[in-house]
Amino acid sequence: MKIIFLGSGNLATRLSLEMHRKGMRIGQVYSHTPENAERLAAQLGCPWTTVPEEVDTDADLYVFSLKDTVLADVIARIRPNNGLWVHTAGSMPMDVFSGYTADYGVMYPMQTFSKVRPVDFSVIPFFLEANTPENAGKLQQIAGALSGNVRFLSSDKRKSLHLAAVFACNFTNHIYALAVKILQGQEIPADVLLPLIDETAAKVHTMTPAEAQTGPAIRYDENVINKHLAMLDDPDMRSVYQLISQSIHKEAQI
Amino acid sequence: MKIIFLGSGNLATRLSLEMHRKGMRIGQVYSHTPENAERLAAQLGCPWTTVPEEVDTDADLYVFSLKDTVLADVIARIRPNNGLWVHTAGSMPMDVFSGYTADYGVMYPMQTFSKVRPVDFSVIPFFLEANTPENAGKLQQIAGALSGNVRFLSSDKRKSLHLAAVFACNFTNHIYALAVKILQGQEIPADVLLPLIDETAAKVHTMTPAEAQTGPAIRYDENVINKHLAMLDDPDMRSVYQLISQSIHKEAQI
Repeated sequence: MKIIFLGSGNLATRLSLEMHRKGMRIGQVYSHTPENAERLAAQLGCPWTTVPEEVDTDADLYVFSLKDTVLADVIARIRPNNGLWVHTAGSMPMDVFSGYTADYGVMYPMQTFSKVRPVDFSVIPFFLEANTPENAGKLQQIAGALSGNVRFLSSDKRKSLHLAAVFACNFTNHIYALAVKILQGQEIPADVLLPLIDETAAKVHTMTPAEAQTGPAIRYDENVINKHLAMLDDPDMRSVYQLISQSIHKEAQI
Repeated sequence: MKIIFLGSGNLATRLSLEMHRKGMRIGQVYSHTPENAERLAAQLGCPWTTVPEEVDTDADLYVFSLKDTVLADVIARIRPNNGLWVHTAGSMPMDVFSGYTADYGVMYPMQTFSKVRPVDFSVIPFFLEANTPENAGKLQQIAGALSGNVRFLSSDKRKSLHLAAVFACNFTNHIYALAVKILQGQEIPADVLLPLIDETAAKVHTMTPAEAQTGPAIRYDENVINKHLAMLDDPDMRSVYQLISQSIHKEAQI
């Protein structure tokens, strides 16, 4: 099986390297950016191109890991009309491929990927979708070789899942960034937060976030809340503090 | 050494049980609420009271784990004027004890505690403060018996630390709650988020949150951002989405 990767970002990098590591053959990398295409192709030991029209036409699997805004354009410009075409985006419907090829689907690994950080694929939940039962079988086999946590989900539900992932990961990480910023102002090393960050994540393995909630907002401890607001000079951070504290308090009333 | 615990909440419960487990002798529990006082005292095998004036006067250590709003009142009402008095609050200054007793300090374990969930105290950062070098030595010894991660920090810096902890833990946990809420509407089990939550926490052990940031807001992918906003019916969740996305984008510009 020959695989072509379209994209060279965080997800494309980690997924293609993992497939390569599992013995799957990556035949070519496409990326708009020559440096990125070259870097990833070097890691995979395969040729690369920056021109959609030069993507090989003889592959069995085309994996599109591109920004949503350019995905449709690249789909329209590549030449092959064979093989199985899949994208890896949480937020794009499967039918973005409709009319361009006969066999297509989605393989969405719900994880946060950074180019430089290897992750354990075996526990990553993969959400699949395919336009035919035969393609579903093929995708199940490919994803099943990478992870023990594979299931099928419609485009519509995947959109909601992706939104939940943005909260659970991207927003959480930014909240960490704001916490670190507070410590920087006091010259306290950021790593003192790690046991707290770890336990906050570990806790929701054994209780719901609603049960796990602690702190001044859930106790509605206005004394502490007001002192904290007075300490925040940055108006954005004050807004975040206020909005999330209100939201915690409101949920507790339900 | 005889220890008296004032409070029976999440922190008081976990800390007193850990001290008990380590062989320290808890001689009495005070709590405003009889059920809570009785429950904790039963776990510790000691007497309890709901009347501050009935707190034993012969203890060596008095540990105040009370809501900030009632701490000063209980300090003023108890009878002893001996022993070392410490509170465990991130947000209260040490001098709340000033004028009531000669020997006092602070022992703040920065962690999220729930009554029902045991935690590994050995990795919890303890932040200490004491009004004399002798009391500092005593506190160092007590906290050092519980954790390998003990340091001294002024009341002023501890206030900022506590604010950072509210972000890193309480706000993070609420963001998890919002993510779960999105999935509930789609009948997707919440536990699909756990590998993502775990990796988001693990990532900041090896890179800064700024380096670890991924997702539509950091890419400034307006297509995805607008689709997500359109999916959020709840005005509070929409505000959280908007505010945090803007904040992510702004930090990325710096």
